[in-house]
Parts: sequence; structure tokens; C-alpha cells
Amino acid sequence: MVRVVVDVMPKPEILDPQGQAIVRALPGLGFDGVASVRQGKRFELEIDSADAEDVARRAAAELLANPAIEDFTVRLES
Amino acid sequence: MVRVVVDVMPKPEILDPQGQAIVRALPGLGFDGVASVRQGKRFELEIDSADAEDVARRAAAELLANPAIEDFTVRLES
Repeated sequence: MVRVVVDVMPKPEILDPQGQAIVRALPGLGFDGVASVRQGKRFELEIDSADAEDVARRAAAELLANPAIEDFTVRLES
Repeated sequence: MVRVVVDVMPKPEILDPQGQAIVRALPGLGFDGVASVRQGKRFELEIDSADAEDVARRAAAELLANPAIEDFTVRLES
């Protein structure tokens, strides 16, 4: 069984209203100096396959991420 | 300016209906061998502060995560 982490983030040119809402909320909560927040998704997969990384990469492209507006990275965890 | 990544995941004992839905969808899309999926959030913060990691840790505890049901990790990116 292999653990694979897939990180999905909005592409840099895509607006991220959730991240912007957080940036605007932070000063009112006493947090200064946070210039930018981007919010994405993190998936932790347990895969029973010799091709775990490939399975995760294809699943990311087809199901976990929307390649039109999101970038993703895939990495095996030790 | 320091980049800090905050990963927020549901606690292991908390049900994750989004992850479960993905696990159930994958075989029908031709992906076999995925035993478990947990879905969480990833935040990328740009912080202008000498205490960037501490700022991020407090923001995670107060705003980005719900400590009752989620765990979070904070790390500086080089």
C-alpha cells in the first residue's frame, strides 16, 4: 500500500475568492503582514498498485482537479 | 516575504464524505486499487513578517482550520 499526496491549486491567473476573503479577514483578527492567500485542495490516497503514482496522476487529471483552472502535483509519501 | 504552506486535513476519526465519494467513483472510471481517499485543504500564504511561521500557525488555528474536527501542519517553503 502506497500513500500518495495530490495537491490541487487554482492556476495563478485564476481568481481565488476564498483566498481573497481570508486575506481580507485576517487584519480584523489581529494578523498583520499576510499579503496573499491561495486556497486549494489536498488529497491523501492509499493505493494498492505497482503503478500507484501513475494511478494517482491519472485520477488527478480526470477527477480530482479541473485542468482548465487548476494545477496539481503528485508525490509519493515515504 | 516568506511563503508558508498550511495543510488542513480531517482528523482520522472524522468521517470524510467527500473522500468516500471519490473512492466509490474511481472504479467506475477505470481506476482500481485506490483503497482510501481523504480530502483536505491546502493554503499557500505569502507573509511579510519576521514571525511568518508563527503568524501562519495562529491563523491556521483561528481561521483556516477547525481544530475540533481538523488537524493542520505548517511549514515554510524555501
